Amino acid sequence: MFELQRHADNPVLVPHQDHPWENLAVCNPAVWYEDGKFLMLYRAAGDDAAHRIHLGLATSNDGVHFTRVSTEPVFSPVPGNFDGGCVEDPRIVKFGDWFYVTYAYRPLPPGRYWLNEQSLAFMPKEPAEAPVFYRQNMTQSGLLMSKDLKSFQRLGRITAAKDDNRDVILFPEKINDQFVMLHRSKRLVGEEYGCAHPAIWIAFSDDLLTWDDGVLLLKNTFDWERKVGGATPPIRTEAGWLMLYHAVDDAGVYRTGVCLLDLQNPTQVLSRLPEPILVPQEAFERDGLYGQCVFPTGNVVVGDTLYVYYGAADKCIGLATCQISDLLEALKNQQ
Amino acid sequence: MFELQRHADNPVLVPHQDHPWENLAVCNPAVWYEDGKFLMLYRAAGDDAAHRIHLGLATSNDGVHFTRVSTEPVFSPVPGNFDGGCVEDPRIVKFGDWFYVTYAYRPLPPGRYWLNEQSLAFMPKEPAEAPVFYRQNMTQSGLLMSKDLKSFQRLGRITAAKDDNRDVILFPEKINDQFVMLHRSKRLVGEEYGCAHPAIWIAFSDDLLTWDDGVLLLKNTFDWERKVGGATPPIRTEAGWLMLYHAVDDAGVYRTGVCLLDLQNPTQVLSRLPEPILVPQEAFERDGLYGQCVFPTGNVVVGDTLYVYYGAADKCIGLATCQISDLLEALKNQQ
Repeated sequence: MFELQRHADNPVLVPHQDHPWENLAVCNPAVWYEDGKFLMLYRAAGDDAAHRIHLGLATSNDGVHFTRVSTEPVFSPVPGNFDGGCVEDPRIVKFGDWFYVTYAYRPLPPGRYWLNEQSLAFMPKEPAEAPVFYRQNMTQSGLLMSKDLKSFQRLGRITAAKDDNRDVILFPEKINDQFVMLHRSKRLVGEEYGCAHPAIWIAFSDDLLTWDDGVLLLKNTFDWERKVGGATPPIRTEAGWLMLYHAVDDAGVYRTGVCLLDLQNPTQVLSRLPEPILVPQEAFERDGLYGQCVFPTGNVVVGDTLYVYYGAADKCIGLATCQISDLLEALKNQQ
Repeated sequence: MFELQRHADNPVLVPHQDHPWENLAVCNPAVWYEDGKFLMLYRAAGDDAAHRIHLGLATSNDGVHFTRVSTEPVFSPVPGNFDGGCVEDPRIVKFGDWFYVTYAYRPLPPGRYWLNEQSLAFMPKEPAEAPVFYRQNMTQSGLLMSKDLKSFQRLGRITAAKDDNRDVILFPEKINDQFVMLHRSKRLVGEEYGCAHPAIWIAFSDDLLTWDDGVLLLKNTFDWERKVGGATPPIRTEAGWLMLYHAVDDAGVYRTGVCLLDLQNPTQVLSRLPEPILVPQEAFERDGLYGQCVFPTGNVVVGDTLYVYYGAADKCIGLATCQISDLLEALKNQQ
């Protein structure tokens, strides 16, 4: 059984008591590595009752010790904007000089969802004529452009307007001259879609704002999986696209799985490990706003080392690593 | 030949020299009438080189003399937002207690488009991987909710991501339990779409954010028409939906046409006048940022009087009226 190795200094980022916007929780970061520097764009929230969720930025030279670049968020929900409630769970790719960031959002603040029985976000439910996006305070996913991860150009929605859809992740390069995107639709569920629970879909497009549903890529298969969603941007290896994903089981425990996709046709799953490679076990993963949860959203490669950054219990950020060659070996043995 | 009657006090709104955001141009207003009061939400721009475009609000008790409610815009493009360049040409309907405003926008300021040969807005053209929406600084149309037309909830894009589409107008009520929308796509042009130039399409939906292309409703027919687009929200009458539209001819002159749509099946055009009902002729319609242009965007009914508010030469706002019974008579005679 293959497992990621937790770093001894975990958690690598915790809430900052002097910053009201991030004094309660930091989690689910995107991470980019370039020129010897790690950039971490992380989800952050303070102890306000509305629970607006922001993005903060921190940097590191070793991938372990991170320094915040500012006392303020770099990206925030602006009340009244389409993403005026919360901005969450960024993922980063880079084309040319520009970062392209996918993120989840709601129009209104979710409130303290972890205090509700089903962790449901606030819903106004009215007015009757308003789009379901507003009435249900539904999650959509959007696209940002940025040159520095400090200022951003919002480009708007990249998921269907009437679909609870997050964990939208771009591949880091075009395949067959098309952009490729993973998403986790709650609309595409049922017998007619081939999955009984929300699953991972893969879509292709020549324009980063224009996407159709694509095709089903990965659904719940093992007993530790019920709902599954993408985790981190897939990584090109000689053996295929290395793709981490998350799975939540019937008890609500979030674990991390891994699979390998065909390089030229990533709709084909070449291999998938039957056991999770990361399971909540440390105290900071078991207890938090949403306990029993590890939720990777960023990964970078340095040499043969894969750095996996994950939200832990919606409260802080952990780091786990492995040798890519070892992980590929495990996946190869599973084929 | 039926013509709207210009009001003697035209133009009814002109730029305000003390307001930097509207010291150059005001035009293309949405107008709502309720409880004896006219609310005018109008497009406004100052003499900045970027030519950001805002929305201002003015009110009137007689529909002729308007008073601005503020020295500031009520709605502005926020740099970096999806509509960060300009917000333009609002149209208003109201369901329950909420106004729903459709508007056109660009991600980046258009610049002084009227100084270019083809009145083209600024385009960054790069980066290559960016969505065409950004690279071409393309017009999309979006939806707002508001209770007072002073503060707004942005709901995002309601047109396709890769389509230059403005003059998006909601019908003021559901028809057969569906919302109905007019739009003027530049993508749906060509033999396969049944129109050689951009035309008016009509679409139906059960959700105000989710729209397909719908069907072609009205295309250029007369010699004063080349490109046509919706003008004002259609008005229910006993004879059918009274619908004003604009048409631009080969010389770039904007005129106003009118037609009547079937009440139960508004894809059916019952009647259409062969001559325009408003043609640029006054000095303030002939000369401005874009000369030879009348562009109605708001209409209200008070008794038997139809008040039509129009942008004149992209510079100021005019009012023209008629008796609805006379206009319907003209349309009936044309059937």
